[in-house]
Parts: sequence; C-alpha cells; structure tokens
Amino acid sequence: MSPFRGSVPFTDEWEHFRLERADGVTTVTFDRPDNLNALTFEAYADLRDLLTELPHRGDTRVLVLRGAGRAFCSGGDVNEIIGETLRMRPDELLEFTRMTGEVIKGMRECPIPIVVALNGMAAGAGSVIALAADFRIAAESARFAFLFTKVGLSGADMGSAYLLPRLVGLGRATQLLMLGDTVPAAEAERYGLVSELVPDDELDAAVDRLATRLATGPHQGYALTKELLTRELDMSLSSALELEAVTQALLMKTDDYREFHAAFNAKRKPDWQGR
Amino acid sequence: MSPFRGSVPFTDEWEHFRLERADGVTTVTFDRPDNLNALTFEAYADLRDLLTELPHRGDTRVLVLRGAGRAFCSGGDVNEIIGETLRMRPDELLEFTRMTGEVIKGMRECPIPIVVALNGMAAGAGSVIALAADFRIAAESARFAFLFTKVGLSGADMGSAYLLPRLVGLGRATQLLMLGDTVPAAEAERYGLVSELVPDDELDAAVDRLATRLATGPHQGYALTKELLTRELDMSLSSALELEAVTQALLMKTDDYREFHAAFNAKRKPDWQGR
Amino acid sequence: MSPFRGSVPFTDEWEHFRLERADGVTTVTFDRPDNLNALTFEAYADLRDLLTELPHRGDTRVLVLRGAGRAFCSGGDVNEIIGETLRMRPDELLEFTRMTGEVIKGMRECPIPIVVALNGMAAGAGSVIALAADFRIAAESARFAFLFTKVGLSGADMGSAYLLPRLVGLGRATQLLMLGDTVPAAEAERYGLVSELVPDDELDAAVDRLATRLATGPHQGYALTKELLTRELDMSLSSALELEAVTQALLMKTDDYREFHAAFNAKRKPDWQGR
Repeated sequence: MSPFRGSVPFTDEWEHFRLERADGVTTVTFDRPDNLNALTFEAYADLRDLLTELPHRGDTRVLVLRGAGRAFCSGGDVNEIIGETLRMRPDELLEFTRMTGEVIKGMRECPIPIVVALNGMAAGAGSVIALAADFRIAAESARFAFLFTKVGLSGADMGSAYLLPRLVGLGRATQLLMLGDTVPAAEAERYGLVSELVPDDELDAAVDRLATRLATGPHQGYALTKELLTRELDMSLSSALELEAVTQALLMKTDDYREFHAAFNAKRKPDWQGR
Repeated sequence: MSPFRGSVPFTDEWEHFRLERADGVTTVTFDRPDNLNALTFEAYADLRDLLTELPHRGDTRVLVLRGAGRAFCSGGDVNEIIGETLRMRPDELLEFTRMTGEVIKGMRECPIPIVVALNGMAAGAGSVIALAADFRIAAESARFAFLFTKVGLSGADMGSAYLLPRLVGLGRATQLLMLGDTVPAAEAERYGLVSELVPDDELDAAVDRLATRLATGPHQGYALTKELLTRELDMSLSSALELEAVTQALLMKTDDYREFHAAFNAKRKPDWQGR
Repeated sequence: MSPFRGSVPFTDEWEHFRLERADGVTTVTFDRPDNLNALTFEAYADLRDLLTELPHRGDTRVLVLRGAGRAFCSGGDVNEIIGETLRMRPDELLEFTRMTGEVIKGMRECPIPIVVALNGMAAGAGSVIALAADFRIAAESARFAFLFTKVGLSGADMGSAYLLPRLVGLGRATQLLMLGDTVPAAEAERYGLVSELVPDDELDAAVDRLATRLATGPHQGYALTKELLTRELDMSLSSALELEAVTQALLMKTDDYREFHAAFNAKRKPDWQGR
C-alpha cells in the first residue's frame, strides 16, 4: 500500500513457513506438523520481516495465518529454541525476546487485517500470535494455552500482559497468564477471545468467507479502523476524538466515500477501490 | 449545577429535537421518525450546545435520550449530511467531524448521568451516542450497527475506537467496528454493551424507573462516580488512587454524607440534597 | 523475597485481623463476624503495613484473604469509621482516604499472588479489596456490593473506578459503581469478576487447592506475571513489548528456566526453586 520504495528488494522465497497469494489474500501456513508447528528462530525472523514488507507490496488486502496438521502453533520449539537460549548470553537473549515482540508489533501496526484460523492448539508464542490478530476464527476443538509460567518464565510474553487484559479483562487475563492452563475454544469465545466459533469441518469455509469479504470490501476503511483501534488503546479520550475527527475528514475526500453515496442513490452495490 | 454564569443566556427553544423537563429529568427525543431519526448538522450542533448548557441550569439530574417511532437514531442523514460533505473543503469537513466528537466529549464529561432508551436501530452516529451514554436500556428488538466502513469511512468515528474496546474488549470491538454488522440487543448485552435488556413493551417503564431513581438519589455521588470513571480511563493506578482519595475526602464534608449517617442510625431513608 | 533489610523490625503480632502461616501460604482472616467483618481504622493500617512487610519476610508465596463467619467483609464500619469521619478535619480525612488507597496499591504492587475467598457479602471497601486481588474464588452464595453512593459518597473509592472498568468494561462498571446494587456471584462471574465459582461447601477446598498450587509452583514466574499485568495497564504497546522482552531475557538466566528444560527432557516434573 505504500508506494514509497527505495533500494530494499522484496523477498522471493520465505523458507520458514509456506506462503500463498490469491485474490488479495496472503496465506501463511506454519508447516511443521510433526512438531505441532513449533517456531524456530528463523520462523520468528521471517514473520517479523514479512510484516514489514507486506504493506509495501500492494498485493495483499488480508493476511491469513494458519497451521498445517492438527495444531495452529505450539510456540517456541523446546529444543531448537529453549535448549539454545540456555547457552546464550544476556545480549543474545534480549535480541531474541525483542524479535518476538517485533512480530507482535508488526501484527498490530500493519495496516492489513489479520485473520487467524485456529484448528487446534495455540500454545505459548502461538497463543500470543493468535491474540494479536484482528480476527480469531476457532474450530470447536481449538484451544489456547498461555503456558509461559509452566516453562519457568513470566506469563507476560510478546505483549500478552498488555493485550490479553484489553480483550478479556484483568481478572481473566490474570488467571490465563499466571496459571497457563489450557482454555477450550467455547470458553475463550465467552471471554471475548474468539471472533467466530465454528464446527471443525466448517473452519476453512468460515476463514475463506471472512478473508474474501475483507479482501473485496472497503479496505482503506478497514485499515484505518485497525490503525485507530491499535493507537487509541494508548490515547486519552480527547486525543482520540481529535485523531478520529482528522482521519474521518481525510476519508471524506476519498473515492470510496463518494462511491458509497453514488451507489446508495443508484440502489446498487458500491465498487470499492480502497482509495 | 454550576452557579457560575456570566453573559451567556440559556436557550429557550431547541429546534432540532424535542426536549421535555419534569422532576429533574430532561428528555431529548430525536423526532424525525420518517427518517429513522437521522441526524442533521443542526441536530449535532444542538446536542453539543445542550450538553454544555445543561449542567449550568440546575434543573436536570438525569438526561434521557430516546427516538420517536421505531428507531433510536440511524446516524447522519445520507443526503442531508453525506451528500453535503461531498461538496465540502477539508477545513469544513474537519469542523464537522470535530463537532461530532464534541457531542461525545460533552456526553462523557457532563456531570449528569445519561440514559439511552433503545427501542430499535442505533446505527452510525446513533450507535456511538448510545455507546457514550452511562446506561443503555434496550428493548429486545433493539440493535446496534457501527456501520461506518459500509459508507467507505473508518469504523473509528466520534470516539468509537476509544470507547468500544473499553466496554467490550478489543476483539469484539474490532469485529463490530471493522465489519459494521448489525448486532441484536441480546448479543450486545452478552458483550457488556447493554445495561438492561427488557421486553419491548416494558422499555418505557424501565427507563422511567431508572431515571426516577437517578433523579431522586444522591446525585452528587453519581456525578462524581461518572466523572472519575471517565477520567480514570486515562490515568495510571497511582494517580487514580490519589484522585479518589481527594474526591472522597471532599465528599465526606458534604451534607449528604452526614445525612446518610443520621438516617442509618434513625433507621429511616436518607433525604438526599446533592450537596 | 527482598534480601535487603535495614533497621526496620518485622511485626510479631497483627492485632486487627487473624494471621496464619503454613507452607508458604499466609492467610489473613477478617475476624469480627458479629459485624460482618467491618473494617476499623486500625485494620486498614495493619493491611497497609502487612503488604509492605510481607514480600521482605521470605516466608510467603501466596496470600489468602478471607472472612470469619457468614461474610467476607462489609467494608468500613458505619459507626467506628463513618461516624468518626464526620468529626474529622479535611487533612485528617485525606490521611484516611489515602491510607485506604495504599492498601489497594500494596495489593497490586506486591509480588505475591493474592487469593480472596468469598464466602458471603463483599461490600464497600470489602468489594474493592476483593477486586484488587489476583484471584477471586466465590461460593455460589457470595455477592458484591460497591455501595458507596448509598452512603452519599462517590462510587469511585480505593481505585474502584480504575480497576472495575479494566475487569468488566466501562458499561458494567458504571452500573455497579453508580447504583451500588448487590451483584450475586454467578452474575459477577459472567462479567469476569470471579475467577472460580464453586458450591458453598467446596469453597475452602478450592481456595486450598489454588493456594497450594501457587505456593509450590514457579513463583518467580508468577510474581513477574502479576507485576507486568499491573504495570502494563498504564503502558503503551511498544513500551510493554520492551518491558516484556527485558523481563523474559532476565528469566532465561534463572535456575527455574534451566530446570524446566532438564525436567522436560528427563520426562519428570520440574522442581521449582523460584530463582
């Protein structure tokens, strides 16, 4: 969406997840089903870099994240990541933990709506990646496990202690993050952590339906809805009102706003251009 | 409630909604039932000015907002507002969007509790006005539609992206604001967006009951509850604790606090004076 | 947990509540059952001082608060507190209200998880003490009453107007704090105000089970989960991500993290040391 590019090339090949593009939908599939799609250092790096690059390509109106096999993502690999971090120096550890945070920052600040397809377990880093998405479509057999304390760490990881209370309230966030127990999808839905709960065999169709809707809808309006939702968590009421006033005035000068009015009066569907 | 007035006169006649006063309850009725009570530029201006003036009159302990006919309020009129904004310059658009934000700021910062009676659709600006009230009493057939993206704008409008996540959490707010779909009252109640859900034919009675209770209760305490709820969304824990300590110490010097104690020991009901 | 002590002695005898220690669990029992465990000035002072001292003793991994008899705590005593405050000067009132806020600040900033056992009414200050805990285990017959407006004060007391919206959302918090009505445990659970809802005769067992789990678990991870949940309510996303990155990197240098990995590979349970 940004037309401003300098010397940096786009990445042709993402090696640490599967990536497909079709009709404005970019789909990332965590693809290590034998390890419940556990993440490696390189997978984090690829996610971080993809989220930086994606808005510049102009070919993506919605990003879908999913997992191959029977899990969404089980988080950092016990041996490839936890085992390695035991041998790292403090400066190396901080580089690693900061990178994981950059993935979440990229997800929240990226102007593209992100849909997560939850087919099974979302654990550790996998649960926070799901948490940072805009939409979480969950199969009935899906579940969350913010299990960080169970590995001897803090339940606050990759922004979970910032995000989770803002989705489900401080009481439930305390319970989920401090104890790290597994939460079934239906309970997570009751808490406000699931956007849409569907039977297992309807998950793919539900994800496709939402992705198509987001890809063909007024995506400039979607992008600025996401942007302001993210920013206004950290703003006062009066600053938020000013940001919304200026943003909305800008959007009233767009083709899409004019198109809505023309379509409404002609009793036809708007043809959204996203500009 | 403010005894401090200078040269500015009170407004005798509000032309862009119906206004009635009785027993400390001021009722504003959006009264264009043929247009589902769509708002005009002048209606926004009247709301903004009423909210500034009302606390100074001393005759209002609770403000009720309602809609004539079968809707609460369908938001900005498609032709009288959207059509007109297409012809406006950037500076004019910003004056308009800022005015709509001032309505919400007035609602949140006004020391008078605001009750909204939701009899049917609350859409667009109507949904945000409902959101900014202190109490939302909804008939079972009522519904919300934060439909801004459907007109090509941002779902963040009049503070919706600030307020809605603070009522229903970021996940549900994203869904409601980005997609703009209609939410029935029962679902909104489950999310925390409805204070009281009643059968359609009991709406008026429920609104009257709450308005009477608020008008005859300890309104100084109500006003400072609302004020601190509003302010503390933007404050740190330690600053909030200090604000509450000072406020409560001030209230311990009021007649109402002394009256509670006297009434308690005399086993009678307190006679609240609001001072 | 802090090894740094100077001249200040520990307190041998707490006179204004009952205190027991066993296996890392410190239990405070409000013990004036004939007054529904109403608080006195001295009980607030003891709570404030206990919360300062407790983390320094090194003998407590979890703090349980409970009430003797048929209530948890009915708040400030009508005659011993409210009656007395009517005779106080502004500076004395402010010293009192600040002290009550310090109890809540101590609860939130104390690195020890706090579990509240709700056997019956939690009213006024008792409801805010419950609100400020990390876990609220409620018997089915328990109930909350944030009844401050009913005594002529603001519903914002001891941080309630900061904390409650962050647990249950602004809409429900407005209703609970402005009206001060009694909320049964099941409804409070639906709002996110109860961690675990149990039959009355299972309350003690549920509290013991959670206290034992917290006392024998990875308490360093628990402490830093609580710490970050508390702090990040007042932080921006990007600052929160940095705080979590640094905290997690520090924890990756602890014995507990190494122990998790060793235990995992040996297929045994970790032996947590909390360091």
